[in-house]
Amino acid sequence: MSATTKNVSPAKLSKPSDREIRVERVFNATRERVWKAHTDPKLLAQWWGRGNKLVIERYELERGGHWRFVEHSDHGAHGFEGRFREVTPMERLSMTFEWDGMPGYPVVSTAVFEDLGDGRTKLISTMLFYTPEERDGMLQSGMEGGMNESYAALDALLARTS
Amino acid sequence: MSATTKNVSPAKLSKPSDREIRVERVFNATRERVWKAHTDPKLLAQWWGRGNKLVIERYELERGGHWRFVEHSDHGAHGFEGRFREVTPMERLSMTFEWDGMPGYPVVSTAVFEDLGDGRTKLISTMLFYTPEERDGMLQSGMEGGMNESYAALDALLARTS
Repeated sequence: MSATTKNVSPAKLSKPSDREIRVERVFNATRERVWKAHTDPKLLAQWWGRGNKLVIERYELERGGHWRFVEHSDHGAHGFEGRFREVTPMERLSMTFEWDGMPGYPVVSTAVFEDLGDGRTKLISTMLFYTPEERDGMLQSGMEGGMNESYAALDALLARTS
Repeated sequence: MSATTKNVSPAKLSKPSDREIRVERVFNATRERVWKAHTDPKLLAQWWGRGNKLVIERYELERGGHWRFVEHSDHGAHGFEGRFREVTPMERLSMTFEWDGMPGYPVVSTAVFEDLGDGRTKLISTMLFYTPEERDGMLQSGMEGGMNESYAALDALLARTS
């Protein structure tokens, strides 16, 4: 966000299968810092909610641990929760993700952190749904715009904490 | 389990797709009683654990509600949990189901209660997995034997409370 920020490529969204969404995005920060921004509740609260107040009710960063976030916007409160499937520091973070508005419809969200070797990190995120209809519903929900807002907020956090 | 119990057909297991398991089983009880045995924690505790002690830590029977059971056997404690997706009394009960031993691998478990009109009820249960491998892992885990033990315990409960 500052004049010294290197340009980043926009997020690249693709559909590897009819039940998945894949997003690639490069961040101007080391893998350690991008990992920390994804796993430290104090940092997560600063970008995940895209500027909205985010209350982290539960965050147990280990295999089998639970997490729960509540985002407070002008439109009300939205809860999200899930459980960690895999926590491999700096490398891989996999969890279920479920929105209170569609309870019982979890998605498997997996992030892979790739060190680009020049102080930048590529984040490869995939979401796996039970059905193609749920995947398409997510795409139609404005998910891409929300994700880009979150990533812009993460860019800003990384820039101001570098 | 008494001499007056009508014969029931054994559970019929099938694979409607490569990510599903379907089980049909007839019970010698009205739909209302079979529904209640599936949704009243005091009754659930008497059959779900197949004779093992079952502690019901959480049971919020409504869309979006959470549930959590811990089964205590000679081999230790096993936790199971999930969230209700649909609760339509007497007709349909759908929830996610996840074993602590494989956290982050929920299954969608849906039970349909069919009134056979002669005091018997057909229960049609389906489980939907994210992948064929997870489905096959469940089949190889001895799930069918465990299910038959649970259903036998449910038969016994229905016979002694009729």
